[in-house]
Amino acid sequence: MAEFHSKIKTIEWVDNYSKMVDQTLLPYEFKYVNITGGQQMYDAIKTMIVRGAPAIGVAGAHGVALYAQELAKENLSRADFVTQLLEKADYMATSRPTAVNLMWAVDRQKEIIMNSTADIDGIIKELIANCTKLENDDIAINKKIGDYGAEVVPKGATILTHCNAGGLATVGYGTALGVVRSAFAKDNTIQVFADETRPRQQGARITTFELTMDGIPTTLITDGMCSYFMKKGMIDMVVVGADRIAANGDAANKIGTYTVAIAAKYHNIPFYVAAPLSTIDTSIKTGDEIVIEERSHDEVTHINGKIICAPEVNVINPGFDVTPHELIAGIITEKGILRPDYNKSIAEAFGSVLLKN
Amino acid sequence: MAEFHSKIKTIEWVDNYSKMVDQTLLPYEFKYVNITGGQQMYDAIKTMIVRGAPAIGVAGAHGVALYAQELAKENLSRADFVTQLLEKADYMATSRPTAVNLMWAVDRQKEIIMNSTADIDGIIKELIANCTKLENDDIAINKKIGDYGAEVVPKGATILTHCNAGGLATVGYGTALGVVRSAFAKDNTIQVFADETRPRQQGARITTFELTMDGIPTTLITDGMCSYFMKKGMIDMVVVGADRIAANGDAANKIGTYTVAIAAKYHNIPFYVAAPLSTIDTSIKTGDEIVIEERSHDEVTHINGKIICAPEVNVINPGFDVTPHELIAGIITEKGILRPDYNKSIAEAFGSVLLKN
Repeated sequence: MAEFHSKIKTIEWVDNYSKMVDQTLLPYEFKYVNITGGQQMYDAIKTMIVRGAPAIGVAGAHGVALYAQELAKENLSRADFVTQLLEKADYMATSRPTAVNLMWAVDRQKEIIMNSTADIDGIIKELIANCTKLENDDIAINKKIGDYGAEVVPKGATILTHCNAGGLATVGYGTALGVVRSAFAKDNTIQVFADETRPRQQGARITTFELTMDGIPTTLITDGMCSYFMKKGMIDMVVVGADRIAANGDAANKIGTYTVAIAAKYHNIPFYVAAPLSTIDTSIKTGDEIVIEERSHDEVTHINGKIICAPEVNVINPGFDVTPHELIAGIITEKGILRPDYNKSIAEAFGSVLLKN
Repeated sequence: MAEFHSKIKTIEWVDNYSKMVDQTLLPYEFKYVNITGGQQMYDAIKTMIVRGAPAIGVAGAHGVALYAQELAKENLSRADFVTQLLEKADYMATSRPTAVNLMWAVDRQKEIIMNSTADIDGIIKELIANCTKLENDDIAINKKIGDYGAEVVPKGATILTHCNAGGLATVGYGTALGVVRSAFAKDNTIQVFADETRPRQQGARITTFELTMDGIPTTLITDGMCSYFMKKGMIDMVVVGADRIAANGDAANKIGTYTVAIAAKYHNIPFYVAAPLSTIDTSIKTGDEIVIEERSHDEVTHINGKIICAPEVNVINPGFDVTPHELIAGIITEKGILRPDYNKSIAEAFGSVLLKN
């Protein structure tokens, strides 16, 4: 088990390539991989070498910069370079369909490509500078999310989380686990219950890894157990991340989140979503419009390469589900905690962003 | 993948030993193991070579007969034989604390030991005859449960189940899966969604195995997915087994069942428990009195022998949870479907048993 500190960057642009933690190896190995080409980045996102909505966003921006470097070697006219790079950017945005941060970050790069007055080398420099800006912004935003969220964590609370919305789902610090880190910094008697999060076990593999490395007391449970501990009064609040949030507050997150939200409601336990405003897609009115990625059946039928069921069985493997806004006590963002009515509070949050920019 | 037919007996007394399917090997191997001693049976129950409340009950009765055969070789007086065998019977009943069928079946053997007028060899013959009776009764009871349950399965229904309350949890046919089998015999357009059921994965390993062998269309899902499919209108009813039911209808079953029951309630989907009357423990008023077995942490932290999390993590591994009676639409028994108020319907069901015996 290698060392991990929450100050390490999960993904970072270095010289002319993208350096990231290979999360498919956790918790067995903590290893960086260098991504040097656009298609390699597409595959890294698709196969979850990098995962977590905010980290995928940064990875998508890196991917556009990598494609720009490749196209620059092809002796294209500036106009052809721009046209082909915008096509590559759109392709990069399809590597995972549910995380809106990916589309958001790719769109930031597309704006640079379309609006730049520089030559090809100049465009590449601007794209790379924006990669670094997105990385720094992500960490700063997560710290704000953490600090706002910590205000609603009761003293000595046990916080249940699902999947991994941690430092390893972002450039650093984390969203849901950013709340945990900020709360723990103020009160070291808090603790975390981590859902295993089948099928890909990000809770077991990644959340227990990064929290125990930071010395935060963490208990691993299987996904079906949450209600048992809620009924016993052992869970004080739930905090999860999100991959896309609709204008009405409906939030897509890792499959199984919706089940936890229903259980929390049944036991009157507050259920929070922690996510940057870039996760909110105000172009969609409700969660019904969110495309849910269907992933490989092997993720359900095999664990560590070994089949766990009858081979003849059918499988459906949705990667995400949508938690309806009525189950969400608050959405913790870098602009504060948004409360119902979300149509109103989300619109206001975006208004204030627009005013400050 | 070996052959399995629902007519095969999961556990059967043969000559002077107990023959059972080794369920720890499923779905990789379908193999029988012969249990020839009392302590070997205790260990087989504890390590889940045999599992499922009704099958454990029969196994406990077999275990008492095996101990009787062993004690008969020790040249004890009849009085000492009886005393020591009753102690062994009590020990056998502790191999798993939650399943009341185990205590029930061991008690049936204890009654024979205490009431018999035969010599030692005669007592052994009576105990073995009772083993065979319990086996035959179990199959007959399950068929009745299946037929009563099939009456409430809508045409073309998709039935969600958790864990394995199938032929392999009983001597044969199954309780929850007995309902599925009886319904499928009448209407071959029904299908099953099977929860994986972490940590021991009985849904993936055993339920998909026995249902696909019987040609019943089965879809494997992870435990967190149930609400996703319920919201999509893809689940028409839930049927699960039980390990102990209190006088008020509160039902202990495999961990994760309570979460499914809450999700079913939230989506207005009927949630049924299928179990023989021997599962009902009228000596306890509510589920709060049910002892929940705490199992090995390795079941959560390891899959197929490989660790899946940070080794420093805490674990709590309750084997069961209790679904409160208000979430249960009906308890499907061999005397018909019991409905709320369960205090009344359960008392009536036991009254009719007493009258008929």
